[in-house]
Formats: sequence, C-alpha cells, structure tokens
Amino acid sequence: MSTAYDALMAFQRETEALGQIAGRLGWDQETTMPRGAAAQRGEEMGALESVLHARRKDPRVGEWLAASDATDDEAKANLRHIQRSFDRASKVPDDLAAEIARTTSLAQGIWAEARAKDDFAAFAPTLKRVLDLRREEGAALADGGDAHDALLQDYEPGTTAAELETMFGALRPRLVALRDKVLGAPAPAGLEGTFDETAQMKLSRQIAKVFGYDMSRGRVDKAVHPFSSGSGNDVRITTRTNPVDPFNCIYSTIHEVGHAAYEQNIDQAYLLTPLGRGVSMGVHESQSRIYENQLGRSRAFTTWLHGQMVEAFGDFGIADPDAFYGTVNRVHKGFIRTEADEVQYNLHVLLRFDLERQLINGSLDVSDLEEAWNTRFEADFGYPVDRASHGVLQDVHWSVGLFGYFATYTLGNVYAGCLHEALTAAIPDIDAQLAAGDTSAATGWLRDNLQRHGGLYEPREVIERACGFAPNEGPLLAYLEKKFGEIYGV
Amino acid sequence: MSTAYDALMAFQRETEALGQIAGRLGWDQETTMPRGAAAQRGEEMGALESVLHARRKDPRVGEWLAASDATDDEAKANLRHIQRSFDRASKVPDDLAAEIARTTSLAQGIWAEARAKDDFAAFAPTLKRVLDLRREEGAALADGGDAHDALLQDYEPGTTAAELETMFGALRPRLVALRDKVLGAPAPAGLEGTFDETAQMKLSRQIAKVFGYDMSRGRVDKAVHPFSSGSGNDVRITTRTNPVDPFNCIYSTIHEVGHAAYEQNIDQAYLLTPLGRGVSMGVHESQSRIYENQLGRSRAFTTWLHGQMVEAFGDFGIADPDAFYGTVNRVHKGFIRTEADEVQYNLHVLLRFDLERQLINGSLDVSDLEEAWNTRFEADFGYPVDRASHGVLQDVHWSVGLFGYFATYTLGNVYAGCLHEALTAAIPDIDAQLAAGDTSAATGWLRDNLQRHGGLYEPREVIERACGFAPNEGPLLAYLEKKFGEIYGV
Repeated sequence: MSTAYDALMAFQRETEALGQIAGRLGWDQETTMPRGAAAQRGEEMGALESVLHARRKDPRVGEWLAASDATDDEAKANLRHIQRSFDRASKVPDDLAAEIARTTSLAQGIWAEARAKDDFAAFAPTLKRVLDLRREEGAALADGGDAHDALLQDYEPGTTAAELETMFGALRPRLVALRDKVLGAPAPAGLEGTFDETAQMKLSRQIAKVFGYDMSRGRVDKAVHPFSSGSGNDVRITTRTNPVDPFNCIYSTIHEVGHAAYEQNIDQAYLLTPLGRGVSMGVHESQSRIYENQLGRSRAFTTWLHGQMVEAFGDFGIADPDAFYGTVNRVHKGFIRTEADEVQYNLHVLLRFDLERQLINGSLDVSDLEEAWNTRFEADFGYPVDRASHGVLQDVHWSVGLFGYFATYTLGNVYAGCLHEALTAAIPDIDAQLAAGDTSAATGWLRDNLQRHGGLYEPREVIERACGFAPNEGPLLAYLEKKFGEIYGV
Repeated sequence: MSTAYDALMAFQRETEALGQIAGRLGWDQETTMPRGAAAQRGEEMGALESVLHARRKDPRVGEWLAASDATDDEAKANLRHIQRSFDRASKVPDDLAAEIARTTSLAQGIWAEARAKDDFAAFAPTLKRVLDLRREEGAALADGGDAHDALLQDYEPGTTAAELETMFGALRPRLVALRDKVLGAPAPAGLEGTFDETAQMKLSRQIAKVFGYDMSRGRVDKAVHPFSSGSGNDVRITTRTNPVDPFNCIYSTIHEVGHAAYEQNIDQAYLLTPLGRGVSMGVHESQSRIYENQLGRSRAFTTWLHGQMVEAFGDFGIADPDAFYGTVNRVHKGFIRTEADEVQYNLHVLLRFDLERQLINGSLDVSDLEEAWNTRFEADFGYPVDRASHGVLQDVHWSVGLFGYFATYTLGNVYAGCLHEALTAAIPDIDAQLAAGDTSAATGWLRDNLQRHGGLYEPREVIERACGFAPNEGPLLAYLEKKFGEIYGV
C-alpha cells in the first residue's frame, strides 16, 4: 500500500471522527440540550461544519488521491468514497454552499410558520429560493448532466432519476389498485383505551434487544421525532410515546433499531473509515423497513407481540392474536406520509418524487405546486386533501433543501422486499422463530449478508450480492398484494 | 479597530465554539455515553483536540496578533488571552505534547489499579514519567524561569509559586491550631437514617434555582463525580446522591452551581470570545466555595435549609435549626480531601502544594513521595494515614499531569474569604435574606462585581476590584476561626 494512501487514510480517520462528533451534537440537540442553548449551538455546529468542509476539500486530499493506488477491494472502496466527497466539496463554490446553509436554516422556520397557518403562499417564495439554490448546486455537481441525478448522489450514489421513474412507474398502478380494493373492504378493529407510557418505553427497550440492538453501544431515549444517530460503537436511537397509540412507540423503535443495527453490525475493521457507515439512505431504509414491516408486522411476530402487550398492559380488548395481526396492519385513510400504512406509504413518496422531478427540471413552477399536489393526491388516494398542512406543507424536507431524498424511502421498501424474499428462502422455519420472539436467524442473515459490509460495495451491488438477484419492485408488490389480500379478503 | 484584529477574532470565535464542543463531549462521556463507546470516543476527542491544537498555534494567529492594535480594555484582554494560548501552543514541541497525551491517558488507568490495591510502588514509575514530562514542558514554557511557575499559568495566570508559598505559609499554622482545638472539643450530632434519593435530587434542583442557576440554559444530572461544564448559554452541572448523606448531594449541587452561575452570568457580549469564560481556576473556585460554604453553610441559610429538609424528608431526627447548623458544619477526622470539612480542607491542599513544589524542583524523588506524604499528613492532621488509597494515591490529578492545579483550590477559598467580607459589608441584612431562602442580593452582588466580567481582568485584579482590597488570607482565617470557634466553643 502506498504512503500516499496511508497518509490519506490517517487524515480521513480524523475527518470521520469529527463527523461522528457532529452526529452526537445532533442527538444532544434533540434529547438533552437546554432550550436556551439553541443559538449558541448553531454557532458551534457551524464551526464544526466549516472544519469538516475544509477537510473534505483540502488540497492534500486531492494530491493523496491522485498518488494512491488501490490493491484490494477495501482500498478501492475507500478511495471511491473519499474521491466522491472531495469532488462534491470541490465542485460547489464556497459562496453557494454558504448561501444554501444560510437560506435553509431560515427556511425551516418560515415553513413551520406557514404550516401552522395552512398557508402555502407564505412559504412559496422561500421554497422557490431554496429550490433555485439547489438547482444551481445540482448543475455545478452535474458537469452538464442531469441536476436531479446529481442531487440523488448525495443520498443514493449510483442511482438515476430515469431508473427510479421506471421502477416507480411500475409500482404506482398496482399500489393504487391495491389501495382502492383495501379501502373498499371492511377494516379490522382499531385499538381502544389508553396505554401506560412508561410500560410502552419498557416494552420498546425489550423489543429493541429482541431485534439485536446492542445496548452497551447505544441507548434509547424519547424525542419529538424518532431517529437513529451515530456509527460504530455509539449508535443511539430515539422513540416517542402516545397514550392512545402504543404501536407508534413500538414500531418507531423497531424501525430505528433497523437503522441502528446496520451501523452497529458493520465490520469493526471499518471503524472510523468511509466503509464504517451505512452505504446509502436507500440501503439504510431497507434495514429499518424490513425490521419494522416484513419482520415486525408479520403474522408470526405479531403473535408473539400480542402476548407481550397483554403482559405489559393487561387485557386491552383484543384477545385473539389473529385479530391483533389485523389491527397492527390496519389500513386507514390519512394525509400524512409518516403516519401511513404499508399499502399507502409508497404512494406518498411517488407523488413527491414526481413533483420534485418537475420542479427541478423546470416543468413545474413553485406557484403551481400546491394545486399539482392536491390533484395528484386525490387521483392516487381517492380522497381530497383538506388543508395545506395535510398536503404540500406536511414535510420539512424541501424547506431544508433535501431535494432527492424522498425517493430513498421507497427504494428502501423495494430493497426490503427483495431481501425479505431471499431471507425467507434461506430460513425455512423463520415464522416459527418469529412467533417465539426470536429474530436472531433473520437479523443474523441480514448482518452477515448485508450489514457487515458497510460501505464496501455500492448500494445496488450490496443488495444484489445479498439477494442473489438484481433489485426490482416485483417482490415488494407480491408481498403487499398477498399480505393485504389475505387480511382484507380482496 | 484593525482588520487584523477582526480576522483574528473571527478565527478565534470558531476556536472557542470548537472548545465548547469538546466540553459538551466531556459532559456526555460522564452522563449519557454508552460504556461500549469509550475507545471510539477517545479517538473522536483526539481528533477534535488535534484540530484545536493546530488552531491555537496557527501561524496566521501569530501574524494577526503582531498586526493587531488594541484600543480598548476588551480588545486588550482578548489579545492577552490569545497571545498566551498562542505562546503556550507554540513553545511546547508537538512531540512532547503528543507524548504527554499518550502517557497521561495510560497513567490514569495504572493509577486507578494501584489505588485499588493500595500499592504506591505499582504507580511510582509511571508517576515519575509523567512528572519528568511535565517538568520538561514546564522548562520549555518557562524560558529559563521557574518550571513550577510556568505550569501554574495554565490554571492561574499571573500567580507565582513563591507568592503562593508565602500565603500558604501564613495559613498553615493557624489552620493546624484550629483543627487541633476543634477536634479536641465535643462534636455536634451527625445525621442518622436514610434519605430518599429522588427527594434529594428534587430538593437539589430547587436549591440550584434558589442560587440563581438558570435551568433554561443548563440542566442537572447525576454522575459519579459532580462537575460543571460549558460556558455561556449551555452550562450543565452534575451531582450525586447517597442515601445516608443528603448533604453530599445538596452541597455538591450548590458548589457546582457556583461554578455554573459564574459562566452563565458573564456578559453576553463576550459569548464565544476569550472573555466569555471564567478567568482562572482560582477565581472559579472562589465562586463555587462562596456559594457552598460562606453562603450555603452559613447559620442563616441552614435555618431555611432545615425547613426544606423537613418538608422533603419529614422528621429526620434533628428538630432544632441551631443544632442542624452544627450538623452541617461538623468537623470529622478523615483522609480524603474531597470529603473534608472547611477546617481541614486547605490543609490537604497545602500538603499537596508543598510536595509538588519539591517534586518539580527536584528536591524530592518520587520514590520518597509516599513517606513524605505520610509524615506531613500526621504532622498537620494529628492522625496517621492508614493506607495508600487514603493518602498519596487518593487524587487522580498527578496521574493526568495536573501539576500546579491543587493550589487553585485554596486560592479559591482565600478569594472567597475576601469576597465574603466585602459582600457582607455591602449587604447589611444578608443574614435575614439567607434565612428566608433568598440569595438574590448576595449572588447578584457577585454577578455584578465579579462574574459578569468573565476574562476581562486578570484573576487577582478582578478579585481586588470586587473587594476593594488586595486579596490575602486574612479574611478566610478570621471567618474560619470565628465560625468554628462559635460552633465548637473553642
């Protein structure tokens, strides 16, 4: 291995460590930070970000990259990640990067105010400014190529908007048809009554351990929004409680454990290198989704969960595990993506992806966005949006400049569908195990076939290696149509 | 104001922000960090420290300093602080600094093991190595002057070992005499029974507010060792509970609130500048001590505290506020500095300072340190050390290289004595206020006359400005002799 490579990796190791610190501050901000510290914290984070930005585009990194030769797969992957980060940091002018940071930090507050007032017009000029800046950034990154493709690389390296359009185009009609049939059929019973919040947290911690979350290298706290944060040996998750909806707490926890287990299970040899982090948002989401849905909301696992619920809360009105399975998987009309069930969730994402594509290529103007949203929503969901906070204003993403991010949610579901097909083929008695509250074979398969590789392979490649076939939307559709066909008798 | 000065201050502001981040990570490490994250955190902290070190000695800082002209007191003070930090970082060779970091990080573990085994010989070679490295560093910093003086500047800029020797020399005989008389007299009753730990924390939080701690810019958590961390608008404290010793929790809290209030009350215009932090360890300790002792352990305040204790814990066996005052201020034989009462505490420090002085000037060898410790302890305390963990191995300081630090504890007490004399003269009815649980006039006086200045004045100067006289040991001695003379009738 060349001296240049060693020097590069030593420098990168410190950059990775500083990046972990930024993550830890993010966690602190959402969990333990005193509210009066917000402005000061903004400056502290800004100082750290400016150190990180300078390191990513440090001219020495360019020199070391040019002088490094990779002799094995791991070195090749490290160089690929560092080159990508160097190019990204070098291509975007500092002035533009600073302007994006300034604008988005203000935009989030303006968005929150507009949402509280259900007033899209109050947010539109700001959104237009954020969009224009990100289009400019996309153009700088694209070198004459597609700006949307360039922005997608931040979240899902190697994918293209055209590829996603094809995949999402195949998903949409069958998801709309399934949603239509399911919402036309009688729904399983919902939960009633209240559920002690301390008992919810206790049960969630227990379930986190059942899914293999290593508490000695993590912790579970409450926060307004559930999230997972950190890599390697310090991977923390948050969840939330709602007295009338224990599923929110339980499934938020399982979802975040999916993200966290991915980070915790990466080969320790990759610690504090570019390989020591989950490889993309789509692959990350595949782990959170397969833990939450294909495993956590399966008939087998909910059988076990039903017993735990009775133990935690006493008789809560649903005595039959089979009826409980229906309750867990109840499909309901709703406007909010983050509250959507498995059937409707991806329709929310597809809508956003298509509108975002038009916004970026200039065929849709921000002033027409609300109308476009509402028209599309009614077409796909079968019921009209009743107010802006239930429609175009519901998500924070665009306000902070996250154009290109939404697609990774559905990509994650598609990947989860593929992984689930391969996993059930590899573990014939998986249902018996899940019904006994034992996820170790399933999560062990994911660890060995996918999670441990971290950033070693490109996103599509790591999924294909794990599954034995190229990722495609078929398994997800088959899974959803079978599962909800059975539950709803459609 | 010159352009060089503006550039320097902009750069320094980011350095200060990064320094605050390091503090926050330290807090996290002692309160919320998963135990399995320790090694990774070590690397993360190392990366941040190396960024900070490089910034402190950045050649541009030297150029800006040379080109800056100060036109007002604040600019002068900023330049003084930055120059000191630049000189310090520049004078110590990088190799030596790295070797000190490596050695002390290992030494702490070796010290802890030796202490657990009461085996000073197992620690002595390591201590010798740490001492030698710090002596080398002191020599590099001293430019031919006294190495001990040079090391003292890290904690108490402007003081000298000779000056401290004179002051401590005046303290020692009168403290020994007072200790001798007090321990020969009948002691007040001690506490008996157990005290609910949740109620201890609740009462502590209430008392923190009574002493002016701003909870919206801080928080109180439990940790193994009480500490205060952070500056400006994010100043967090920790405390601890012991079911049979509620005073540990209460007075640890008041002590840390003294430190934290100092940081919180610095002029907001100094935020994230060198003036936005407490000016020295000695002045810091003066605030923690005056809050804890002169105010918190006063007859007036303990009258109020007694009522709060009864409210929190019910009848706990001491019905009379006057007897309670004696219990709070009970003097007891003991070996451990951190558990010592007001009478004996400074004798612990004086012992360490004198031995440290001899170690640094080479007149005492590490191999003779344990014997020297034990001889001196018996001479000053009147009873012999029974084991190494109760003697020379009790403190972590020297293992991590903190030679020069101990003196600031007693300097803080001396400063607190002076401030208390000035404060009581300025607020004639202070006792009536404290007896009503109202510290606002006292803490307000400290805020206005001392805390708000942050790093504007040098340590001795800020004390002298607040008191109206040059700091000296007289007021502390008079206070202790009067207080304990009354309680013990000696």
